[in-house]
Amino acid sequence: MHAKTPTTTPTGEALRRSLDGPFHALKQRWRDEVTADDVVRDTALGMEEARDWTLAKVVELAGRNFVTAGFPTEVGGSGNAAESVANFEMMAMGDLSLTIKSGVQHGLFGGAIVNLGTQWHHETFLPSAIDVSLPGCFAMTELGHGSDVQSIETTITWDATTAEFVVDSPTPTAAKAYIGNAARDGRMAAVFGQLWVDGAHQGVHVALVPIRDEQGDDLPGVTTGDHGHKGGLLGVDNGTIAFDHVHVPREMLLNRYGGVDADGVYRSDIKSKNARFFTMLGTLVRGRICVGGGAASAARKGLTIAVDYANRRRQFRAPGLGEEVHLMDYLTHQRRLLPEVARAYAYGFAQNELALQLQRITDAAGSDPIAARELETRAAGMKATLTRWANDTLQTCREACGGAGFMSDNGITLARQDADIFATFEGDNTVLLQLVAKALLLDYKSTWGDMDLRGTAQKTAKLIGTTVLERTTARSVIERLVAAADLKPEAERIRMRGWHVSLFEFREQHTVEGLAQRMRAAAKEKDSFAATNACQTHMLEAARAHIDRVVLEAFIEGIAECDDDYVRALLVKVCDLYALATIEANRAWYLEHEAFEPRRSKAVTAEVDKLVGELRGRSQELVEGLGVPAGWLHHPTAAVPPLLP
Amino acid sequence: MHAKTPTTTPTGEALRRSLDGPFHALKQRWRDEVTADDVVRDTALGMEEARDWTLAKVVELAGRNFVTAGFPTEVGGSGNAAESVANFEMMAMGDLSLTIKSGVQHGLFGGAIVNLGTQWHHETFLPSAIDVSLPGCFAMTELGHGSDVQSIETTITWDATTAEFVVDSPTPTAAKAYIGNAARDGRMAAVFGQLWVDGAHQGVHVALVPIRDEQGDDLPGVTTGDHGHKGGLLGVDNGTIAFDHVHVPREMLLNRYGGVDADGVYRSDIKSKNARFFTMLGTLVRGRICVGGGAASAARKGLTIAVDYANRRRQFRAPGLGEEVHLMDYLTHQRRLLPEVARAYAYGFAQNELALQLQRITDAAGSDPIAARELETRAAGMKATLTRWANDTLQTCREACGGAGFMSDNGITLARQDADIFATFEGDNTVLLQLVAKALLLDYKSTWGDMDLRGTAQKTAKLIGTTVLERTTARSVIERLVAAADLKPEAERIRMRGWHVSLFEFREQHTVEGLAQRMRAAAKEKDSFAATNACQTHMLEAARAHIDRVVLEAFIEGIAECDDDYVRALLVKVCDLYALATIEANRAWYLEHEAFEPRRSKAVTAEVDKLVGELRGRSQELVEGLGVPAGWLHHPTAAVPPLLP
Repeated sequence: MHAKTPTTTPTGEALRRSLDGPFHALKQRWRDEVTADDVVRDTALGMEEARDWTLAKVVELAGRNFVTAGFPTEVGGSGNAAESVANFEMMAMGDLSLTIKSGVQHGLFGGAIVNLGTQWHHETFLPSAIDVSLPGCFAMTELGHGSDVQSIETTITWDATTAEFVVDSPTPTAAKAYIGNAARDGRMAAVFGQLWVDGAHQGVHVALVPIRDEQGDDLPGVTTGDHGHKGGLLGVDNGTIAFDHVHVPREMLLNRYGGVDADGVYRSDIKSKNARFFTMLGTLVRGRICVGGGAASAARKGLTIAVDYANRRRQFRAPGLGEEVHLMDYLTHQRRLLPEVARAYAYGFAQNELALQLQRITDAAGSDPIAARELETRAAGMKATLTRWANDTLQTCREACGGAGFMSDNGITLARQDADIFATFEGDNTVLLQLVAKALLLDYKSTWGDMDLRGTAQKTAKLIGTTVLERTTARSVIERLVAAADLKPEAERIRMRGWHVSLFEFREQHTVEGLAQRMRAAAKEKDSFAATNACQTHMLEAARAHIDRVVLEAFIEGIAECDDDYVRALLVKVCDLYALATIEANRAWYLEHEAFEPRRSKAVTAEVDKLVGELRGRSQELVEGLGVPAGWLHHPTAAVPPLLP
Repeated sequence: MHAKTPTTTPTGEALRRSLDGPFHALKQRWRDEVTADDVVRDTALGMEEARDWTLAKVVELAGRNFVTAGFPTEVGGSGNAAESVANFEMMAMGDLSLTIKSGVQHGLFGGAIVNLGTQWHHETFLPSAIDVSLPGCFAMTELGHGSDVQSIETTITWDATTAEFVVDSPTPTAAKAYIGNAARDGRMAAVFGQLWVDGAHQGVHVALVPIRDEQGDDLPGVTTGDHGHKGGLLGVDNGTIAFDHVHVPREMLLNRYGGVDADGVYRSDIKSKNARFFTMLGTLVRGRICVGGGAASAARKGLTIAVDYANRRRQFRAPGLGEEVHLMDYLTHQRRLLPEVARAYAYGFAQNELALQLQRITDAAGSDPIAARELETRAAGMKATLTRWANDTLQTCREACGGAGFMSDNGITLARQDADIFATFEGDNTVLLQLVAKALLLDYKSTWGDMDLRGTAQKTAKLIGTTVLERTTARSVIERLVAAADLKPEAERIRMRGWHVSLFEFREQHTVEGLAQRMRAAAKEKDSFAATNACQTHMLEAARAHIDRVVLEAFIEGIAECDDDYVRALLVKVCDLYALATIEANRAWYLEHEAFEPRRSKAVTAEVDKLVGELRGRSQELVEGLGVPAGWLHHPTAAVPPLLP
């Protein structure tokens, strides 16, 4: 049996309120009403048992109204996309299999029906999608095409003779792959395929296709497969689906952006196939935002466990000291964990802002395409950044707990394994960062799909010295901070936020403008693949610099909104650590671009050392502030007391 | 069913011969005689099934004489420690659970008997340790003490009245923890404890203690526990062992370095308790060398899978090109995988050298303590470096294969999960790197345990400009290379090995000397913990710089020994990539220390880009050269064709 769940300190509570921000009440409801029994998986479960547990718990949470926020009010949701992101983040503090199972069912399958379907689809399918009586698949990725969705091979062909659509996988690589709910539980799939009507290609559309009967057997023409054991997410039944000329009624096409009328004619309000595709995909941006936030939640859980362990575990006697030293007192240990705690805060504030931005765009209902593309860009960049960070941080946490961290009962290993694939699904991180760079070059004026790299290069308007970084809500605050820092001699600026902001902005501006120059030069080359390929690493750099700056500004905004003086002062220090650790991580770039001298670079490292020492005494409160319920850190039946001794 | 195992290309074969070096015949025997059925685990096995499979396969391989090299010739071994390392590395290309199960049984339990025991122990226990009829534990780590072995709490007390030793766990934290074979299979344990004879403390010694009867039940006074599910190594039954005044006969103490004679008196040839402890520990250095090599083998397997996939998988159509582009043609993909292939070669050559060094020290039988400490230092540094690299590289490989990489049948995920703990066991990496730094400061003149950090600081003789880097076998070659580079203008040096060596040496020399200065200053401070703690990150830097240089020299030596002109030219390019990628990774340090200008730093990055492009066409042959049998990349019953499509 475990010791009683410790009470959160007042500072921990106040930090939590600040980091929860607009979602505090919603997140607090999870903490008050959801127990470890509801959301923490027993590590001993085998694959089939894990699948059973996961399905049962998703049904339960749906029944208790914890995962329905994203659905329209008519079917019992709140119609609030931002809240559905916050729900996803809370669930992810419990178990990521559970989170992804619900994400597949409610976010992707349900979300496709909500966003791409019309009233009949909503009325007919949403109630059973919500209560999971109709387990569904989101059948987009194929064996042959993952990142390049526009090239999928599945066809959805209008058959005028029967007035039905025929869904088909014309080649082995056209089989849908890695699809959640496909191996076992799914009864219906939202199938992405190339729509053909009367011999005309209309681009990728989505049809609802029943795949299994009541007994769970494949329906005629459908062949499902089981991927079996995976690197993680054992509770999610990923598998393949292949179609052999499966007929579905005309109504089964999700026709919000284009469909075949009763007269057998294709109609769409969007003329360009390309624009239609990216409009449809754009409505699914929530999934990407959820995945970034969910990965960050898992990292927060890992940090909570590792910091708590480091504050209790002792090893080696220090010369001249009687007692053995706490791990957290070692500089190397502070260096491993505390900058990541600072990043957890930074990404948390930025994620809140992103969720609110999602809500604004959803409310705007397509009236502001530039703002929508800005949202998609930020969602892509944040997803890539947060999932990369979560993977690295969970590994760091495992190692920081030594052998104890490797014992699954101690709460880190399942999160580590489950978070792995977050770097790949909902968009491969390397591909996403390139999309971000492309959007930055084009000032969100065109959709990602509008042009290839050569076209992007030709269209980019950026010139050295001309880039205006897009405003965030904190812009006026930030200009004051920069002006204040500019007045100080360099030696006194190291903890001045304005200096940090200037350096972040310089890096973004310079990498984006430098990329534009390179791309323009590349566009003139004969071998345009080779020339634009050579720009790839610069694209990643520019995208990362952009997201770093956006995150810093969100942190500044989050601090401005904190009304507790003590907590605000603490957050300022955490933000110092985020900013300086990020500058330190990029100091090679700054030195190469002579943004500062070698001496200054060493001073940044020394200041990070100093800051982790200053925050060491607040480390326990800081991880409480990350908001993971203490009772969820381990499964209630864990065989060993957590993180012995 | 799989496609037929592809034939290795002549270049791949030649690279393999070169990288296998002195162990080619031994490693080739594994490739010729061992099948996937022998060494590749079915990913679908649950924990208990995995334990069954692992035990059965270890018994089989022992019977076929694949894991016995390290044992004395009298009991059927070859007495060759270097060969036992090579065997370990080959087994690790199959499955790490299997490798660690054999490592616990033959390397640690058997190794303790070989190295710390005397003739009676050898004759009595080695035959059954080898054929696994006596499954054994290496019971060193305790719940309360892992890295700090000298502080373990278990006691081994001489009871003169019964002429027996009493083994006891006086506190809950004294329980042995994370012990392989402890949860299920073990029948006897080599127990580390504080030896007390007639009220005098003699330091840590090892006693053999039976722990289970024939039926597998705990013997009286022994309590074993099962850690259950772990982050990996599911085939190894790790658990706890606690002792309640368990009596064992006098002979059961492994008494090579100290024991109680028939007259009840403690005798040892080594006077100092501290020296005795580090001498005993030193004889166990092979385990650390194996762990580094085994992790590197797993990374080689991951790289083989990921590079092969990247050479077959296509995604996105390039502007102006008809076909979709192979992943391996993208610069970002080349950047992710090819520097790691280069590191695989670098670490492989360095690991061969380390194994030979182990053999020399073993043959010297204690006659050269300075050389022995140099070996221990290098083993510690290589273990930390190779296991860190393997963890990072396996993760990179998983991500580079996208969703396919996450499907366990595709061969990466089990290796990734199993390799994780290699960063912790056989010495936590952060602790090991500090030991390396300490040894460098003391020029191997004292053992690690001889003094604390303050003492180390006072004893260090190093001053800026006085450090002489210890010679490696390649020293004379290297001096010629450096001299040749010195004659060239800087712009022409970028692929000159001498320039690389100079930069690697500068970094080592400067970090070690800088550390010495800091340590001396710290030793004068009143709060010596705080002062030496502030040096910790510098210790890690110095240790890494040292190992990087040692590895580069080993690579140079490996190339010098290659007698195939074509292969040598290819290896030169791979070594260029290793050297320049390492310089690039440390360019912030070089810029801070004004070893080169910003322009030069950017040129290094550009040259790495160029090199990965040049090696891209050789990537398939290069991974063949890593020596992983093609038939071992996936389990024979894998449910899906590997890495579809």
